[in-house]
Amino acid sequence: MYFSKSFVPILKNNPTEAKIKSHQLMLRVGMIKQSSAGIYSWLPLGFKVMKKIEQIVREEQDRIGVQEILMPTIQSSEIWKESGRYDDYGEEMLRIKDRQNREMLYGPTNEELVTEIFRSSIKSYKSLPQLLYHIQWKFRDELRPRFGIMRCREFYMKDAYSFDLNDDEALFSYNKFFLSYLRTFKRLNLSAIPMAADTGPIGGNLSHEFIILADTGESKIFTDKRIFNVESSSTLLDKNSLNDLRKQYEKYYSVTDEKFDRQEFEKLVPEEFRVNTKGIEVGHIFYFGDKYSKPMNAAVDFNGKKEFVKMGSYGIGVSRLVGAIIEAKYNDKDEIMKWPLSVAPYHCAIIPMIKKNDTTNIEKCNKIFEYFKSKNIDSIIDDTDENISAKIKKFNLIGIPYQLIIGNKAEGDLFEFSEVNGKTQKLNIEDVASQILKAKLN
Amino acid sequence: MYFSKSFVPILKNNPTEAKIKSHQLMLRVGMIKQSSAGIYSWLPLGFKVMKKIEQIVREEQDRIGVQEILMPTIQSSEIWKESGRYDDYGEEMLRIKDRQNREMLYGPTNEELVTEIFRSSIKSYKSLPQLLYHIQWKFRDELRPRFGIMRCREFYMKDAYSFDLNDDEALFSYNKFFLSYLRTFKRLNLSAIPMAADTGPIGGNLSHEFIILADTGESKIFTDKRIFNVESSSTLLDKNSLNDLRKQYEKYYSVTDEKFDRQEFEKLVPEEFRVNTKGIEVGHIFYFGDKYSKPMNAAVDFNGKKEFVKMGSYGIGVSRLVGAIIEAKYNDKDEIMKWPLSVAPYHCAIIPMIKKNDTTNIEKCNKIFEYFKSKNIDSIIDDTDENISAKIKKFNLIGIPYQLIIGNKAEGDLFEFSEVNGKTQKLNIEDVASQILKAKLN
Repeated sequence: MYFSKSFVPILKNNPTEAKIKSHQLMLRVGMIKQSSAGIYSWLPLGFKVMKKIEQIVREEQDRIGVQEILMPTIQSSEIWKESGRYDDYGEEMLRIKDRQNREMLYGPTNEELVTEIFRSSIKSYKSLPQLLYHIQWKFRDELRPRFGIMRCREFYMKDAYSFDLNDDEALFSYNKFFLSYLRTFKRLNLSAIPMAADTGPIGGNLSHEFIILADTGESKIFTDKRIFNVESSSTLLDKNSLNDLRKQYEKYYSVTDEKFDRQEFEKLVPEEFRVNTKGIEVGHIFYFGDKYSKPMNAAVDFNGKKEFVKMGSYGIGVSRLVGAIIEAKYNDKDEIMKWPLSVAPYHCAIIPMIKKNDTTNIEKCNKIFEYFKSKNIDSIIDDTDENISAKIKKFNLIGIPYQLIIGNKAEGDLFEFSEVNGKTQKLNIEDVASQILKAKLN
Repeated sequence: MYFSKSFVPILKNNPTEAKIKSHQLMLRVGMIKQSSAGIYSWLPLGFKVMKKIEQIVREEQDRIGVQEILMPTIQSSEIWKESGRYDDYGEEMLRIKDRQNREMLYGPTNEELVTEIFRSSIKSYKSLPQLLYHIQWKFRDELRPRFGIMRCREFYMKDAYSFDLNDDEALFSYNKFFLSYLRTFKRLNLSAIPMAADTGPIGGNLSHEFIILADTGESKIFTDKRIFNVESSSTLLDKNSLNDLRKQYEKYYSVTDEKFDRQEFEKLVPEEFRVNTKGIEVGHIFYFGDKYSKPMNAAVDFNGKKEFVKMGSYGIGVSRLVGAIIEAKYNDKDEIMKWPLSVAPYHCAIIPMIKKNDTTNIEKCNKIFEYFKSKNIDSIIDDTDENISAKIKKFNLIGIPYQLIIGNKAEGDLFEFSEVNGKTQKLNIEDVASQILKAKLN
């Protein structure tokens, strides 16, 4: 792919309407374009990042045995009346009348619809547990959408739902998602902390938010430094191992401002370990028992007895994560971004010096591009006629993790290669490829 | 994956509300579930098939150099007023007022929105051509939604848009999509014929529908048998080669009833070659020049002169294709379905005979499952306690292309293996895998 042919509309300066750095950067390098208040189109660069995040989220759901389905965006109001949430939800719910004057809505979440699917399909406790997820667009009609895709109206979300026979089994399901979320955020190169949280309009009595640290976060967080050392890599998908993991986290105080209690914080956390900072919510899990299954009559037969199933729900903001990663990784003072390799739009930018009437460098680039392709390294060639330093500045912003310069200084088979803002090495192309491939494995 | 744990709610009989065979089968084997009139949830089996179709569509768009973006489902009415289509579109457009009382709509198609994205980003003819696509949910508020996902309200579609400097270049873009569509349908194991078509509400003066033959199709088609022999596999992505392909197709009479002229048909097609049957539209491409770029002022600078760009649009019904494949491949008399291997939900069903208090067969299945997995063969184990013939009947309906029986007749290392409804062979597991893998390559 040549940069001149790609649809990446770069702005010279930060757009004045953007107040936080993810919004600035995404508009600046043409990842998104606003189409109306709080509603965005995803251009190729932003789309690639979001798709890679989506795929990691999907793989980590599949890994704990959740089955993927896809529910529609437009729902009937009927099921929301059954659960009792139709009136509660307020103006954030986008209500629609179709041509037959039926009351419809754009789903802000899917507890009702998935319960309806479950109750019409599953009759026996022998088919439990059932864990289902989908990744679909949602709509919340925010009064004041802002901060780009961080607080927008149409957003892309993974939401999962669990159905179990009793509290004990349901907690096992809950803990599977707890582990799955830690794994997901780790693959995105984010350190996310699970925090006890309020349940809000979803309801229930057990809930964790997963929060990543960022100065621009909306949530104040209070925690214990030692929580960052808790390790989940050896946790197994069995009840005891998952319980142990939960316990390890629960040893440390860790809440958002909603649940903050200064006395408790100071009593439980020695001064040298206290962390008081801001964070961004990237995931939220809930256990709410029969809150939906009871009013909606979702029950199974258990040896002749009717049991309402115990449910939980589990969300990850897929589109929001694109912004959250920028908030965590972007140095806006020096205008330097570096995407985690696992979600970078390309792995390497090939940056040639272009001389008029001389195609030598472009031909070199084409060969390198093909070689990279054969190694599953995605690259993009900057064939524009900007000078090298302007190109490097541009790619520092775009955040492709590696840069390979094809310039005058190329000596024989050696090229200047570096990580974004890193030290330059002179390497031949095979060594460049093996460095990138090695990093991909981590 | 065990069948007993999968979310595949099978019905004993054909649902009476379904009038055509794709709708019947999809409800019967739990691929979809209606959530309200013309709106469906996709359950795991249906979801898997749709995702595989989506991925083939994507790969064939990428292959001709189209860039993927993602536009939102909810659009502002403003751009539709600019193009003049807001009033024209009628009641099929789902119109919405948000909480600020702004006029919004659920996009039925995206010519306006993509033109708005283009005009705010591309200023010079040097950045042309631009080919963009997205795969996104659309909504058309059909008065009488019917035939399941074949004529529903919320549907999943790939729509692409081309932007060129002049008619000649625009026709080159058009022809690239023409080839891409032939390749796409071929990978889905469908023989789709391109047919000259009316342009309808999209507008313009050049248009082809891609139609597959099916008795239950909505369109009457009139064509020449010899059109099925036209070959595109050696066509290259250059102007001449693409023109030649178009010409080869245009040698043969081929229209839907909209454009049918009996006299012409009988004059141009010798009697022995006449085909008069029914078909299903699975793709539609349009060239409409400056129909949108002129009213919406999407122009580039061409050596100091302002030129309105020439546009085309190119649609494939991704969700509709799931139904179309069933219409083409399902033998409803004998209740036998066989998915093309490229989009099958699983490659092979492992069907053991289950005896009480004897886990030998299940253990064999688990080993085979893991071996298949190591070879990238997706399989599912039917661990239910139904008898073998009930299981085979069920899998004949589900349409997984291969069946492997682990029964009493297993002699040593040899198992009964067959294609759906095909001849049974006794093979060892390595030979089974290599047969499936060989078929995957075709």
